[in-house]
Amino acid sequence: MDRSARFISFEGIDGSGKSTQARLLAERLRDAGREVVLTREPGGSPGAEQIRRLVLEGDPDRWSPETELLLFTAARRDHLERTVRPALGRGAVVICDRFADSTRIYQGITRGDLRATVDRLHDLMIGCEPDLTFILDMAPATGLARARGRNGSEERFEDFGEALQARGRQGFLDLAAEFPGRCRVVAADRAPEEVARDIARLTDEALA
Amino acid sequence: MDRSARFISFEGIDGSGKSTQARLLAERLRDAGREVVLTREPGGSPGAEQIRRLVLEGDPDRWSPETELLLFTAARRDHLERTVRPALGRGAVVICDRFADSTRIYQGITRGDLRATVDRLHDLMIGCEPDLTFILDMAPATGLARARGRNGSEERFEDFGEALQARGRQGFLDLAAEFPGRCRVVAADRAPEEVARDIARLTDEALA
Repeated sequence: MDRSARFISFEGIDGSGKSTQARLLAERLRDAGREVVLTREPGGSPGAEQIRRLVLEGDPDRWSPETELLLFTAARRDHLERTVRPALGRGAVVICDRFADSTRIYQGITRGDLRATVDRLHDLMIGCEPDLTFILDMAPATGLARARGRNGSEERFEDFGEALQARGRQGFLDLAAEFPGRCRVVAADRAPEEVARDIARLTDEALA
Repeated sequence: MDRSARFISFEGIDGSGKSTQARLLAERLRDAGREVVLTREPGGSPGAEQIRRLVLEGDPDRWSPETELLLFTAARRDHLERTVRPALGRGAVVICDRFADSTRIYQGITRGDLRATVDRLHDLMIGCEPDLTFILDMAPATGLARARGRNGSEERFEDFGEALQARGRQGFLDLAAEFPGRCRVVAADRAPEEVARDIARLTDEALA
């Protein structure tokens, strides 16, 4: 496998199947003999999980968008240092359920004027992108119904209505156009095994 | 009092008397009929105090310097939004025990190459300075003896030896030269009431 294509992220609106597809790809690569680290954001390291709880628990208005952005960036930095980079360094494949693209989209939805700040903060304190990003695309109503049907879901992020889900979907499609080198849009309103088959093919192509 | 001179910070090495002098100045201004908000960093608002605990409690190596910088900046943003700006907006004087200068000095001591990052992050996410900053200057050995004699002090910051205290002292003096408009160096190895008298005079001059 190409060293340049070992950090893979899954993005998309709530209910689009990111966690399921991340798990299925991890299983497939493990079956092929690869070490895989399956992780998620916000969180993914002990420190980042503590920051995650600080952000997501309690009154949603307790942090301003700017403070929240700083806390998410602190969590991402810790996750990168403690989980992602050590795994890549020993040759593992890292599969991450959400990464910086989710920050770009969700902070952009709540405060459109923050996108430039999000990008500058990312360049200053994070400075890296996944090698390959799957954007799971789905009609907002379908995603919302799936997300609402789940137990124990991250309500903080999934408390968006259909209009906001629609803005999120378009945001992710725009992002795919902004980063065509690493982003692959996959139609996700199909049976999980069909979606997984396309993701497997696209992963093989990218790693070839 | 000039609107442009109502945010006052106290800086200096550990044991230099920042908290005492901040309190004495607050008392003096209150006696003169001013509303004074006496606050501190890291912390100073409910959210920022939670972040403070996350940073300062537990294993000192649990966060990298970069993650710690992001967490301190998140705390500062919350403190500014929830405590400092509302107080200034209603005409109060804000007196703060440590502000961004402490981050410049202490992150600079632990990782000299981080100073440029500290400044860029400050410009991006904080973007303001106090109107007046008192730098309490003192021989490192004197400060260290005082800090060690205290109970319940913030051990996380005060676990520096004399050599590091000396670097901190020089760092604050350099900072005074870098920001001559707002910084006043005050010799702090004297009786607290003598130090307070100079601070009162300098405050009157700055607010005149």
